[in-house]
Amino acid sequence: MAVQKLKIAVAGLGRMGKRHAYNFAHRTPRAELVAAFTPDETELTWARANLEPYGVKIYSDYDEMLKHTGLQAVVVATATSVHAEEAIKAIEKDLHVLCEKPLSVDFERSREVVEAARAKPHLKVMCGFSRRFDASYRDAAEKIEAGTIGRPVIVRSQTCDKHDKNGFFIAYAALNGGCFADMNIHDIDLALWFLGEDSRVKSVSAVGVTAVHPELQNYGDCDNGVGVVEFYGGKIAYFYNSRTMAAGQEDTTEVIGTEGKIVVNGNPQKNHVNTYTPRGVTRELPFDYWGRFEYAFVNESNEFTECVLENKRVPLKLNNALIALQIGLWMQEAFNTGLKLYFDENGRRIDKPKL
Amino acid sequence: MAVQKLKIAVAGLGRMGKRHAYNFAHRTPRAELVAAFTPDETELTWARANLEPYGVKIYSDYDEMLKHTGLQAVVVATATSVHAEEAIKAIEKDLHVLCEKPLSVDFERSREVVEAARAKPHLKVMCGFSRRFDASYRDAAEKIEAGTIGRPVIVRSQTCDKHDKNGFFIAYAALNGGCFADMNIHDIDLALWFLGEDSRVKSVSAVGVTAVHPELQNYGDCDNGVGVVEFYGGKIAYFYNSRTMAAGQEDTTEVIGTEGKIVVNGNPQKNHVNTYTPRGVTRELPFDYWGRFEYAFVNESNEFTECVLENKRVPLKLNNALIALQIGLWMQEAFNTGLKLYFDENGRRIDKPKL
Amino acid sequence: MAVQKLKIAVAGLGRMGKRHAYNFAHRTPRAELVAAFTPDETELTWARANLEPYGVKIYSDYDEMLKHTGLQAVVVATATSVHAEEAIKAIEKDLHVLCEKPLSVDFERSREVVEAARAKPHLKVMCGFSRRFDASYRDAAEKIEAGTIGRPVIVRSQTCDKHDKNGFFIAYAALNGGCFADMNIHDIDLALWFLGEDSRVKSVSAVGVTAVHPELQNYGDCDNGVGVVEFYGGKIAYFYNSRTMAAGQEDTTEVIGTEGKIVVNGNPQKNHVNTYTPRGVTRELPFDYWGRFEYAFVNESNEFTECVLENKRVPLKLNNALIALQIGLWMQEAFNTGLKLYFDENGRRIDKPKL
Amino acid sequence: MAVQKLKIAVAGLGRMGKRHAYNFAHRTPRAELVAAFTPDETELTWARANLEPYGVKIYSDYDEMLKHTGLQAVVVATATSVHAEEAIKAIEKDLHVLCEKPLSVDFERSREVVEAARAKPHLKVMCGFSRRFDASYRDAAEKIEAGTIGRPVIVRSQTCDKHDKNGFFIAYAALNGGCFADMNIHDIDLALWFLGEDSRVKSVSAVGVTAVHPELQNYGDCDNGVGVVEFYGGKIAYFYNSRTMAAGQEDTTEVIGTEGKIVVNGNPQKNHVNTYTPRGVTRELPFDYWGRFEYAFVNESNEFTECVLENKRVPLKLNNALIALQIGLWMQEAFNTGLKLYFDENGRRIDKPKL
Repeated sequence: MAVQKLKIAVAGLGRMGKRHAYNFAHRTPRAELVAAFTPDETELTWARANLEPYGVKIYSDYDEMLKHTGLQAVVVATATSVHAEEAIKAIEKDLHVLCEKPLSVDFERSREVVEAARAKPHLKVMCGFSRRFDASYRDAAEKIEAGTIGRPVIVRSQTCDKHDKNGFFIAYAALNGGCFADMNIHDIDLALWFLGEDSRVKSVSAVGVTAVHPELQNYGDCDNGVGVVEFYGGKIAYFYNSRTMAAGQEDTTEVIGTEGKIVVNGNPQKNHVNTYTPRGVTRELPFDYWGRFEYAFVNESNEFTECVLENKRVPLKLNNALIALQIGLWMQEAFNTGLKLYFDENGRRIDKPKL
Repeated sequence: MAVQKLKIAVAGLGRMGKRHAYNFAHRTPRAELVAAFTPDETELTWARANLEPYGVKIYSDYDEMLKHTGLQAVVVATATSVHAEEAIKAIEKDLHVLCEKPLSVDFERSREVVEAARAKPHLKVMCGFSRRFDASYRDAAEKIEAGTIGRPVIVRSQTCDKHDKNGFFIAYAALNGGCFADMNIHDIDLALWFLGEDSRVKSVSAVGVTAVHPELQNYGDCDNGVGVVEFYGGKIAYFYNSRTMAAGQEDTTEVIGTEGKIVVNGNPQKNHVNTYTPRGVTRELPFDYWGRFEYAFVNESNEFTECVLENKRVPLKLNNALIALQIGLWMQEAFNTGLKLYFDENGRRIDKPKL
Repeated sequence: MAVQKLKIAVAGLGRMGKRHAYNFAHRTPRAELVAAFTPDETELTWARANLEPYGVKIYSDYDEMLKHTGLQAVVVATATSVHAEEAIKAIEKDLHVLCEKPLSVDFERSREVVEAARAKPHLKVMCGFSRRFDASYRDAAEKIEAGTIGRPVIVRSQTCDKHDKNGFFIAYAALNGGCFADMNIHDIDLALWFLGEDSRVKSVSAVGVTAVHPELQNYGDCDNGVGVVEFYGGKIAYFYNSRTMAAGQEDTTEVIGTEGKIVVNGNPQKNHVNTYTPRGVTRELPFDYWGRFEYAFVNESNEFTECVLENKRVPLKLNNALIALQIGLWMQEAFNTGLKLYFDENGRRIDKPKL
Repeated sequence: MAVQKLKIAVAGLGRMGKRHAYNFAHRTPRAELVAAFTPDETELTWARANLEPYGVKIYSDYDEMLKHTGLQAVVVATATSVHAEEAIKAIEKDLHVLCEKPLSVDFERSREVVEAARAKPHLKVMCGFSRRFDASYRDAAEKIEAGTIGRPVIVRSQTCDKHDKNGFFIAYAALNGGCFADMNIHDIDLALWFLGEDSRVKSVSAVGVTAVHPELQNYGDCDNGVGVVEFYGGKIAYFYNSRTMAAGQEDTTEVIGTEGKIVVNGNPQKNHVNTYTPRGVTRELPFDYWGRFEYAFVNESNEFTECVLENKRVPLKLNNALIALQIGLWMQEAFNTGLKLYFDENGRRIDKPKL
C-alpha cells in the first residue's frame, strides 16, 4: 500500500521560503510539496524553474493557493508583516500551519493567531523555533532533563550574525521589531525551554549600542545589545545579540545548574578543518544560521509532518511563541526607554522592584 | 515540464544498503529509487514495510532486478564477496553503477570490474569512497589545491572504530581482507588524493597487535595496526587503524606541507555540546562512521545522480579504487609477513631498498 | 658587583600571603624577602618553618615589621579589612606598597589610600589586579592595541569559582563586600583596560540568585550574579560571577570590537591532557584562581620589583582600583535594591535614564 | 636554622645552559648556583653581566670549575659532543650530575657514563628528559597508572619544531646524530615510560624525506621522518619528527589502551587567547620547546635538587637514556639503510622477522 503523504504548500519563497520548499519537497519523505505561493516576480520565476518540474503548482495569489485541491497544510514563510494574516486564513480553511517566527512583531496580532489556533484544536499550528529541532540543543535538553547539571538556574544565550557589510539588514530593522525581539527571541525561547516554560518574569533590563551602524538609531534599534531577564524563583537569563560579528555565525547557549553546566556551541566551527600556518591555527565559522542550523530545519519539517499525519502533539506549544515575543518586546522597550521594567508575580507591570 | 529522474535500484539492504536506499529514495531530488534487491528474508520484510509504500519494487533475485523496466543505475551494497560479480552484471546490462568499497578484496577480481567499466565508457561506474564527499575533506582539498600549505609531503590518516564489545566485527574479519585493506583503504585513498594520484609506492611496512581480540590472529588480522607507505619523490603516508576505540569514531587526517598543515577532525566531536561537571568538561564522539559521514553519503548519491543525468565525469576515478586496494593489500602482506616491501619506480617488487 | 635587590616584606601569610612570600623569596631574582608579618599563630609557625630558614625575619606586629632595617617595600596581603590601614602606614614610613585587591571594601577608605599615595609620588603603590600580569590577557591587550578587532565595544567577563561544598566562602561574604564588588572587580578592571580607562558609566544594573546557598541572603549577597554596565560613548560591559561552578575555575573574557573579537579562556583547561573513555573526551579545569593565574602573580612580583628598582611607572594606575571598586559597589547596590542606577556624563547619580 | 642549599654549577651557557643557570639561580629555592663554566667568549661576557652579580663564580675552564670549593653538583649543558666527557669528570670528582640529553650520540660513549655512575651509587646522575617533568605528561602518567585507559598498547608521539627559515639547525645535523636520535629520543623515552621500561624491541623501521632542506641529505638526515617500533608482547610505538612546522612547536603524544586513550597536547596552543576575524578563529602555538616546556625544566631543577639533598632516587633511571638512544640510533639506521631491523627476545639483531 502506497504511503500516505502530507500535502503541503509553502507561502513565501524568499531566503527561508526556498529552503522550506526544498526540505518539504526533497527531504521530508512523508510530505509532498504540492503548491507554493509568492507575490514576487523573481521568486515566481525561480519557482517555475525549480519547483514546478517536481510537480509543485505555483501560485501568485495566496487565497487561490489555499484552495489547492487536497491541500492539508501550509508553511508560512512570507514577510513577517503578513505571517499572522496568512496563518489565520489557513487556519480558517482548516489547514495545519507551520509558521516562521515570529507570528507577528505585534503582540496583539500574535495573540489573534494563537486564539485562532485554539479555536481549532484538531489543527496542528506551530511557530518554527528552529533551534528546538537542533541535535545539539536536544542533546543538551536531554542531559538537563536527566539531571546532569542539577537544577538549571542561569541561562546565557546569544544570537550573533556575521557582519553583512552591505547593511542589507538595516532596511529590515524597522519591520522586524528590533534586535531584542527579532534575534534574541530564539534565545528567550531556549531560556524558557531550559528554565521552565512556566517561568514568570520579575524584571527586564536591556542596553544596546550602534557600534557600526548608527543609522539603526533611526529605527530605535541597535547592532549589539545585552538584555537581562530575571524570573521569580531565583532564575536569570541574560542575552546578547550582535549584527556585526567578524568571523561568522555565533549562536551560543550556556545553561548553568546547581551541579554543572552545559554549553551549546561554545566553540563555533563550520566544519572539522583546522589550518596550521605561520599565523597560527585557524578554523572557520558558519557563514550564517543556515550553516549552523540546516539540519534543524530538516528535522522540523519531518516532525511537523509526522505530528500532522499521526495526530501527535507538536513539540512546541504555540503559546510559547507569544510569551517569547512578549519578553523580547519588553527587552526592546527596556532598551528604548533605558528603564528597568518590573513585574509582580501575576505578570502585571509594577513601578518598583519587588524585593 | 516534469523533471527527469534517474531510475536507480539498490542491491543489498544491510546496514549500508538501507542507508543508500533511504538517501536515493528521500534525499536525492533528481533520483527515483525504483527497485531494491536483497536475498535476505529479514531485509525483505523490512523492504516491504519501508520501501514498497514509496513505490519501490522489491526483488529477491538480483538478475530479475536488473531487468526492471526503465532501470538506469544500480547501487551495489551487498556483501563484499559479491560486489564484483554484481557490478559486472550491471555493467553488462548497460547500467550505471555506484559500488560500495571495495570492489573486491581480491585484486584480480577488482581489476575485472575496472576492465568491464573501461569497456563501456558511456557508463558511470564509481566506487564509493565516502570521505571524498565529506564537506570537511573537500574544504581541506580546496585549501591544499589553493596552495595554503605549500607542497603536501606527509599524510597521517586513521580509521578508528568505537569498540564493539560484542565482537560483531570478528566474524567479518576473514571476509573483509583484514584491517589494513578494509579500514585503512579510506586513508590510502585520501593520501593519494592529497599527495597526488600518480604517486608511486617505494616501500610498505606495517605492524599490528591484537590488543583486545586475540582471536583475530586466526584470520591473520589485528585490532590495532600501524602502516607506513613511502612514495617516490619524497612523500610519506602513515596510517593507523583501530577496532577498539573507547570513546567513538575517530577518523582523523593530517596533511603536512612545506608551508603548513591541515588537520581534518583532530578534535572529534558528535555535536556542539560540552558538559561541565565535577569530572571536568566532556564532549561526546560520533558512535560510528554514519555519525561522522552521514551527509557525505547524501552528497555521494546526489553527485552520482548528477553525473549520470548530465553525463559528467564522476569525481573519483574507478582505477584509484584498484590502486588503494593494492596498497592496502601490500600493508596487509607486510603485516602478515613482518617484512618491509620494496618497489622500483615502475611498481615492480624488488628485494632490497632502493636508496 | 653584586646585584642590588629590593628588600621587601610580606604582611599576612594566609593563602595569598604565603604565595606572595614564596614568589618574592624564590621567584623574583631582583627581590629579597627580608621580613614577614602575621598576627596568626598557625601562620607564624608556618613562617618559622618555611621562611625563617631562608633568612626571612618573622614578625607578629605589623608596626615592628615596618621598622625592619633597610626595608624598602611591603606586600599587603592581610585580611581585606586592614588593607587600607596597613598600606597607609607603610606609605607613611616611605615604603613602596604592593597591596592585594581591594584597597578596602569601603570606597572612602580606599580613597584615603589613593590620597596617601598621591602625597608621596616618589613611592610605587600598586593594587594587585593579577590578571593584568597574565600572559594571555597581555597578548589580548596587545592585539587590541594593534587594532586587530577594530574599536572595542563590548566586554563580557566572568569570574567563576569552583563550588566549595564546605561553604568556606560564606563566612567571608559579609567581609568582602559581596560578589559583584569582590569577584567581578577583576572583570571591571579588565573592562576598563580594554574599553578605555576613561570610560564614564551611564547606567548600572544587576541581578543575582542564591542557587545553592540561600544563607548568603543574610549578607545581602548571592552565589550567582549578572551585572551590566553601560558607558557613555556606546560601550557596554557585562559580567557574570559564580561561586558554584562544578568543574573548576572559569574566568573568561570576551572583547568584541567593530572588526573582530578576542576571547581569553573561552575553553578553560587545566593542562594539555584529554582523556578518551566510553563517556567521551574529558579535560579538567583549574581547581582555583591559582591554577589559572600562578604565573601572573610571578610576573606581578617581578615587575613591581623592577618598577621600584628602576623607578618606572607601575603598569596599573592606583586610581583605577578606586574606579573599579566604585563600579563594583554600584553593581552591588543595583543588585540589593533591584534598581537600575543612572549617571550623567560627569559621573553624578541621576534619577532617570539619559537618552 | 638557615636552609641548607645544594651548591651547583652549570657547564655550558648556550641556549639551554642559560636557562638552567637561571632556573637554578632564581627558581630553585633549595639550590644555590655557585659557579658556571663556558669556553665561549660571548657567553662569558653574558655570564659576567648576568650571573656574577648574583654571586656566581664564572669559569672558562671546566676542570677548574670542578674544583670550586663546596661544589656538590654539576649541570652539563655544553655541546652534545662533550656531554659524556664532562659528566664522567664530574662523577669522578664525586659530584652529582644533571646531564642534558643525550649523554652522547655515540652509544658506547653513553654507556661509559652509565657505568661511571654505576660505580658511584651514592651519586645522583640524571639525564634530563624534560617532558618527564611536565605537568601534563605527569597527569597522563598518573591516569594511566590508575588504569583509566586499561593496558597501554599503542603510543603515537611526535616532536615537531617550528620551521627556522634560517636553517640554523642544519649545521647541527651532523653533530646531533640525526632527527630520529636527536628529536624523537624524547618520544622514545615517553613510549618506554607509558608502555613499560622493560619493553623489548621486536622490529624497527623508519622513512624520511627532505621536504624543505635537501642539503640535509649530505648528513644522512631528513627534515620530516616517520619511525615505527614494534615491541614484544603486542605493543607498538610510532613516531613523527619534523623540522618544518609552519605554526610552531607541536609535541603531541597519544597513549592508546585497551579501554581508552590519553592525548597530551592534541590541540597545541601558546596561551588562552582566541582571535576572531573575518578569516576565522585563530590561536597561536608556542614558538619553541621552551614555550611549551619552560616549567617542566623548573620542576626538573627543583626535583633533582631535592633528590640530592634528601638522598632520594631520581625520577628517571639513567639506563633509560641509553635504551632510548639505542632505539633512536636504530631508527636512524633503518632510515639510512631503508631496511627494517629485527630483534629476538634477547635484544639480538636477527635477519628475519620473528613471527
